[in-house]
Amino acid sequence: HSIGGTTKIGAMHLLPVSTPYPTKNWLQPKRYKAHLMGTQYVYDFPELFRQAIQNSWTNAVKANPALAPNQPPTGECIDFNELVLDDQDNLAEVSREPGTNTCGMVGWLINARTPEYPAGRKFIVVANDITYNIGSFGPKEDNFFFKCTELARKLGIPRIYLSANSGARLGLANELMPHFHVAWNDAEKPEAGFKYLYLKDEAKHRFENEVITEEITEGGEKRHKIVTIVGAEDGLGVECLRGSGLIAGATSRAYNDIFTCTLVTCRSVGIGAYLVRLGQRAVQIEGQPIILTGAPALNNLLGREVYTSNLQLGGTQIMYRNGVSHLTANDDFAGVSKIVEWMSFVPEKRNAPAPILPSVDHWDRDVVYTPPQKQPYDVRWMIAGKDDEDGFQPGLFDKDSFVETLGGWARTVVVGRARLGGIPMGVIGVETRTVENITPADPANPDSIEQLTNEAGGVWYPNSAFKTAQAINDFNHGEQLPLMILANWRGFSGGQRDMYNEVLKYGSFIVDALVKFEQPVFIYIPPFGELRGGSWVVVDPTINPTFMEMYADVDARGGVLEPEGIIGIKYRKDKQLETMARLDPLYSDLKKQMAKEGLSKEETDSIKKQMTEREQQLLPIYAQISLQYADLHDRAGRMKAKGVIREVLEWREARRFFYWRVRRRLNEEYLLRRIKNITLGIHSKGTASYSSAPTEAARGRHLAMLQAWSGIPDFANNDREVAEWYEENRKLVHDKVDALRSEAIAAEMRDLVRAS
Amino acid sequence: HSIGGTTKIGAMHLLPVSTPYPTKNWLQPKRYKAHLMGTQYVYDFPELFRQAIQNSWTNAVKANPALAPNQPPTGECIDFNELVLDDQDNLAEVSREPGTNTCGMVGWLINARTPEYPAGRKFIVVANDITYNIGSFGPKEDNFFFKCTELARKLGIPRIYLSANSGARLGLANELMPHFHVAWNDAEKPEAGFKYLYLKDEAKHRFENEVITEEITEGGEKRHKIVTIVGAEDGLGVECLRGSGLIAGATSRAYNDIFTCTLVTCRSVGIGAYLVRLGQRAVQIEGQPIILTGAPALNNLLGREVYTSNLQLGGTQIMYRNGVSHLTANDDFAGVSKIVEWMSFVPEKRNAPAPILPSVDHWDRDVVYTPPQKQPYDVRWMIAGKDDEDGFQPGLFDKDSFVETLGGWARTVVVGRARLGGIPMGVIGVETRTVENITPADPANPDSIEQLTNEAGGVWYPNSAFKTAQAINDFNHGEQLPLMILANWRGFSGGQRDMYNEVLKYGSFIVDALVKFEQPVFIYIPPFGELRGGSWVVVDPTINPTFMEMYADVDARGGVLEPEGIIGIKYRKDKQLETMARLDPLYSDLKKQMAKEGLSKEETDSIKKQMTEREQQLLPIYAQISLQYADLHDRAGRMKAKGVIREVLEWREARRFFYWRVRRRLNEEYLLRRIKNITLGIHSKGTASYSSAPTEAARGRHLAMLQAWSGIPDFANNDREVAEWYEENRKLVHDKVDALRSEAIAAEMRDLVRAS
Repeated sequence: HSIGGTTKIGAMHLLPVSTPYPTKNWLQPKRYKAHLMGTQYVYDFPELFRQAIQNSWTNAVKANPALAPNQPPTGECIDFNELVLDDQDNLAEVSREPGTNTCGMVGWLINARTPEYPAGRKFIVVANDITYNIGSFGPKEDNFFFKCTELARKLGIPRIYLSANSGARLGLANELMPHFHVAWNDAEKPEAGFKYLYLKDEAKHRFENEVITEEITEGGEKRHKIVTIVGAEDGLGVECLRGSGLIAGATSRAYNDIFTCTLVTCRSVGIGAYLVRLGQRAVQIEGQPIILTGAPALNNLLGREVYTSNLQLGGTQIMYRNGVSHLTANDDFAGVSKIVEWMSFVPEKRNAPAPILPSVDHWDRDVVYTPPQKQPYDVRWMIAGKDDEDGFQPGLFDKDSFVETLGGWARTVVVGRARLGGIPMGVIGVETRTVENITPADPANPDSIEQLTNEAGGVWYPNSAFKTAQAINDFNHGEQLPLMILANWRGFSGGQRDMYNEVLKYGSFIVDALVKFEQPVFIYIPPFGELRGGSWVVVDPTINPTFMEMYADVDARGGVLEPEGIIGIKYRKDKQLETMARLDPLYSDLKKQMAKEGLSKEETDSIKKQMTEREQQLLPIYAQISLQYADLHDRAGRMKAKGVIREVLEWREARRFFYWRVRRRLNEEYLLRRIKNITLGIHSKGTASYSSAPTEAARGRHLAMLQAWSGIPDFANNDREVAEWYEENRKLVHDKVDALRSEAIAAEMRDLVRAS
Repeated sequence: HSIGGTTKIGAMHLLPVSTPYPTKNWLQPKRYKAHLMGTQYVYDFPELFRQAIQNSWTNAVKANPALAPNQPPTGECIDFNELVLDDQDNLAEVSREPGTNTCGMVGWLINARTPEYPAGRKFIVVANDITYNIGSFGPKEDNFFFKCTELARKLGIPRIYLSANSGARLGLANELMPHFHVAWNDAEKPEAGFKYLYLKDEAKHRFENEVITEEITEGGEKRHKIVTIVGAEDGLGVECLRGSGLIAGATSRAYNDIFTCTLVTCRSVGIGAYLVRLGQRAVQIEGQPIILTGAPALNNLLGREVYTSNLQLGGTQIMYRNGVSHLTANDDFAGVSKIVEWMSFVPEKRNAPAPILPSVDHWDRDVVYTPPQKQPYDVRWMIAGKDDEDGFQPGLFDKDSFVETLGGWARTVVVGRARLGGIPMGVIGVETRTVENITPADPANPDSIEQLTNEAGGVWYPNSAFKTAQAINDFNHGEQLPLMILANWRGFSGGQRDMYNEVLKYGSFIVDALVKFEQPVFIYIPPFGELRGGSWVVVDPTINPTFMEMYADVDARGGVLEPEGIIGIKYRKDKQLETMARLDPLYSDLKKQMAKEGLSKEETDSIKKQMTEREQQLLPIYAQISLQYADLHDRAGRMKAKGVIREVLEWREARRFFYWRVRRRLNEEYLLRRIKNITLGIHSKGTASYSSAPTEAARGRHLAMLQAWSGIPDFANNDREVAEWYEENRKLVHDKVDALRSEAIAAEMRDLVRAS
């Protein structure tokens, strides 16, 4: 990829033609060093972001020429400043020469004009400089990383980490090495061993602060036995671990409230690997491993040459397959482009409205691709549409908008992000085909072999349940996306293997994740889909009634067991025979004959025989009838009658319905959050959720208030009118909310006076 | 176990001797039914609690006779009322006859006078009645369970669930079965199949609300084709799943803010299994399975007889081994006793002070059992003491107070609860011995075999990292225990198998769990223990500086790598030879000779040979010296000098130190929480943590305030004096805090006026 696309004036511009072509730029050696490691020099990354955003404009304008006037001039889609710590140890934005960093961690605050935010959105990039002390984490690097993360949290903006490192820094106090002495067991025979190391007076005075000693006298000589070496340099050992802990904790917190994403652009070791995972979202470049311990060190530990490379331990064939890496890319530019694309789904700031791009795929169209009945298919076709010999059959979401993540892991569940009429959403779908899951052999165990397990479609396994929960958390934390779950599960796998493999724990993760969700969630049982038993339980909207809504397609099924299971309990052979006796004239007749008194044994036997014959002939059909009878209980109509779903939908119309539903709910939640923040205590800033009972009641009141203000009939269902009313009357609503504010203040004063 | 211990007057008391012995009590059939299932009749459980608490008194008084005056009279240690829903669907405490329940879920509010709370502590017990519809979950049961859970959350008290059920209720509309008709393909040949089921006019009118039909006319006959069967009974299908979702969500929330614990007293199926897991803490009775799908249903699905019993799927050999069950017990009474013991570690209410029992094991004693150097030992001896031929060598915690949980799972980490001078704490220790982990063969896969893997001591594997995080969460949520981690890890296992098995995810769970911890956490590297690299990072106190403190034993080690690893990088052979040249006169001399000019080839060769000989002779020793040199960097003295630990401790004295430290910090946190709740917004009730930056600053101010009030010199370290001052001046402090309250109100008013 050529990194061009700038209108900046070149270095040779307007110089005399006789000016010599400049020799190697002083950064060039560092570039080489980085390239040798398989990554870019850290100061070249902002240009990759520039080009990636430039490309996203090109694509956006191609898809929708109406966006062209917004497009910034070539090369001007981003501007950025380097972040540098000032004297007070605070981050300052500074424009300085690339490569003037004084520690192995570099950061920028980037302002990017993207198709979603033509006026600019900000994000922070923090990156290891692999050319500085092989990118190791010392106290200075840790502190800088921490400050960048905290700044991103304070601003509520995305934090991108470019990972290229060698783990925590380590070292020995080199300054003491030429000065210590050894107390031999026998000075004449050093091979007989030694007792301790010590310093003489002179060295002790010289290194007063670098070493802790005990004074002893041995053989008349005063010695300073070394008890502890501290060393002059900061960054030899535990202090780097402390710093690592600091940024581990900060990253764990950051994932909970901003968009965190890591590009594994070079090896990521130890704390580097943990930062990848603690930030959760990760794009791994092929050929760059995520490891805890290097292959040589492991071979030392194992006493034989087990591993030939670090890639064996943490390459994409491991980390993409186990869901640590959400995406892979072939090179840094592709990786940066994927992150830029990912950010396009994410609001510019925490709690800002979702980034909506005018869609070329109009909301007002049918969903054409329809899954077949009782036949496996690719759920991606439902989400994104299907291109086949008959042309393109559009799916539920906007054409070409679906981006799958975690695709290498637990492939019985499909997760990703897509747009619905331009509105970004998280999507979870269910694979209906059986997939093969290959567990690699363990090189450290010669007896182990590659394990192949088949995972049936429509069933939650430990891995796919974990993946489902992971995706829900990713959508909720930092991305704040509304969520669509195309729920089509027969249940959880409950065989011994999966019970032992903790399927209950991972299934519970789904409930735990949904409980915390703070955007609208739509559970939709798709056409010919089914939702049974445990798999219904973990996505039922009562788990989080404020945000979850459940729908079923008119052709969907739901119930505790499948009909086959239920007739085995509630409509067995005896009952089927009863039905036969009622409906089949022949059998009914035989039965009546049988009931007559005074039959001879021969007569009885004959009737019995005829009955048995008839039973054998008809039981298969009556089993079918009983199945049908049971199946009639599993229909969307019953779900609606029992109030367990909000609405019965038709797939063809689903796009129109959900478009306005999600648009209305997003607008509504935004307003409700404003109202709540104002009325529930002026001082309790932040984003307390509506999850507790009293706030739920408050939410109901606020919603009723909005309804009264709008005066729209059938307020609960009239999504389009309500959404448009919210959008057209923003000013009015805000004024009214501000009025509420004054009331709330008055009420609070009253409370305070009472309390005092 | 005989269930006695009551002074209540017997049923035959004072009756004439001729009174006939009463025949079977009307509850007896239900008792039989429950016993047949392997559990007690649900109404008999409160008596088990009575007896268990009675026994805990007996033990407590035996250990500490000073408690005797508090002991309630025999049989009066608990009183309880049944919880029943009233007309408004609210829970009311009612005293009614056992067995008069009208749904399959029963609950009590129990008030127990325990040794820790002689005045009484309350908790809620909610239980399936397995004799009612085989304990299945219908909408009524779900609603009752939900209300009980919400009541426990509202009161902030423990919620114990006695699980004995058959999963979500299911059924078919029996009332329609004798009335539907079948539209045959060929009425003369029913074996040729059918088209649909329908009702005739009369039945349609009769079951107007139970069925959804389409009117069609076929062969001149008006028919009501059945589209959906709703059924008259509530509890046939999806409505039970909705209810299950409701209680799943409620239980997930409850785990976060109260003590939740489940006794698996009988089979727990489907939603029953999920409730066990969502409430996290579980005591499983031997012989009672936790399953999602029964063995017969799985055999049907697999098409062959794979499983012979439900215990194969979810017995203790599965669920205790994978950490779903924290404890097992042989019978219901033992199970109830374990729950009673567990509750003794837990405060009576959310945010109440820890339950402190006057300890007979005095705080002011040495820790006698000391682990050996470079030799495996049982870490339980460090925690609880060791009984051997030399008598009892006390450990860090009170004798006989340690209760291990999750003992069957991931045995390289040991977790449990213990008391330190009577103060309850969570404890995490590290197994130093290698343990064998057996993964059972999968009965459904004939090719699979039992897998045996060895897990080394002192290393975190995916399972033990998960277990560590689980324990931290358990201590934090609902139990609110301070935590002691005896940190002795060499690192995370980073081989291919464990990298593939997501060790990074589970290691990150530890960080995520510590970030949320809201009680004091002490990380203590024990004598001859070590903490390296990644394992240091995930427990470093900077992860949660408000609550975490780190200590190292004077004989402990810490660093990025072990000395063997670091000298391979930073003190290799070339540097070792330099040291040799400096310290060994012979070698140094040879080197000097070598440096002379004008040596003949023979001379050079000879010197070279001598040098090589000397090198070979001494290099092993110089390798030892370099190891020693590196090791001197890993000492507690350096940790203290670098400020990464709070203090260097001596094991013998550790009990005295931590006793006052934890006592002081618990008192302090209690006061700080009070102050914070008052000053940070009168209206923002609840338990917002100090984790964000502004509140951390506020915490510092509040702490400084307490320091000023107490006027104690060396306030930060003088734990005993500070703890005692807090306890003796409670009234004074509370008065001062109340004064703060008025100030805070005034400040808030000022803010409000400004804001308006």
